[in-house]
Amino acid sequence: MESAASGTPLFFFVSPEIGAVTSGSVSVRVNTRLSHFSISLSGTIMEMQAVNSMSYEQFIDVFGNVIEKFPLIAAAVWTKRPFPSVSALEQNFADFIDSLPRSGKEGILRCHPDLAGRDLLRGTLSLESQAEQNQAGLTILTAGQRSQLSELNAAYKNKFHFPFVICARMNDRESITHHLRSRIRNSSEQELQISIKEVLKICHLRLLDIIRPAVHSIKL
Amino acid sequence: MESAASGTPLFFFVSPEIGAVTSGSVSVRVNTRLSHFSISLSGTIMEMQAVNSMSYEQFIDVFGNVIEKFPLIAAAVWTKRPFPSVSALEQNFADFIDSLPRSGKEGILRCHPDLAGRDLLRGTLSLESQAEQNQAGLTILTAGQRSQLSELNAAYKNKFHFPFVICARMNDRESITHHLRSRIRNSSEQELQISIKEVLKICHLRLLDIIRPAVHSIKL
Repeated sequence: MESAASGTPLFFFVSPEIGAVTSGSVSVRVNTRLSHFSISLSGTIMEMQAVNSMSYEQFIDVFGNVIEKFPLIAAAVWTKRPFPSVSALEQNFADFIDSLPRSGKEGILRCHPDLAGRDLLRGTLSLESQAEQNQAGLTILTAGQRSQLSELNAAYKNKFHFPFVICARMNDRESITHHLRSRIRNSSEQELQISIKEVLKICHLRLLDIIRPAVHSIKL
Repeated sequence: MESAASGTPLFFFVSPEIGAVTSGSVSVRVNTRLSHFSISLSGTIMEMQAVNSMSYEQFIDVFGNVIEKFPLIAAAVWTKRPFPSVSALEQNFADFIDSLPRSGKEGILRCHPDLAGRDLLRGTLSLESQAEQNQAGLTILTAGQRSQLSELNAAYKNKFHFPFVICARMNDRESITHHLRSRIRNSSEQELQISIKEVLKICHLRLLDIIRPAVHSIKL
């Protein structure tokens, strides 16, 4: 299993510019992965200063997919700037999700792709999801493994009316299948809560790909 | 001025299939524009039956941009099916927006493109926005007109921290400029309310592009 801490390179864009804009749905990332060993505490503060100085357009470009296919949450969270830390920024995303009605939380889950599903096969995953499913080994399944996962996910969706959501980078194929078999026995209420917690784990790791805080404050 | 009722052809996709899926961010529309003269009351009911039978994936594909760049709202509204009428469906979108905190309403506005702005110039507008800005004559501005609109919009954004949003299909260049000059004098609270009403007008017309109800129930 490859963990999030293994340093496996992901294929996010590397850009020296904050707020540079590309066309379509591709967002430019402020990727500090390649230089995070040189980040000091003051360096971290500088990063947040850069975040806090962004226009809303820049902010949406950079943070628009930390919650999958939900740029509006970045556009809403921008209202709450300045953010004293990455954790404070992250808490704003969590608070906004918490403020949504149940249908909104279900909506967040429904905007997530099926694991090893049609978007992966068609090449229409977001860059972030593509990297995450790749890291979890979901892009190299045998036909039998893919079929098994597809059947389990179909049964899950049939019961809950949203797809199975799990932080793929903290799992591999075996553990994903294990959790799917286990979680499908939950009630809808339990599963909604568990799934939103997984969304927040995904958000946490995506934020760390964009802003790298001082090492001692990373929680995985 | 070209009004929404003039029958000016828009370049939405025409598809005989409900729920057919394309790749990327392009959604397939169920476009009844070409056949709405033959729709009877029972035909309208059939249309809603088709809507009500959609999976959430199909529903998001079809209704994912009736609120600009906010597919999650369609994913959330799907929870409330079945919908007895287009109006009932539309009301669900309005109710969800109403349930959002103020920052969420601001977020909706911030996900709208500037009128005659960078997305238009770069060709990165959504299909719907492209058609709407085209219909309002914003794609054929002189350099001077574009510059004037850009300056006014910059002043507006500088005051309110979201872009000027107006239902372009119900306006033309002159009336848009007039409203911009007038609305910039409002308070933030007034302008947030007015802008959300414009978002709902845009949503209304986009829904009518997808589902054409009996003519007597169209409100413009």
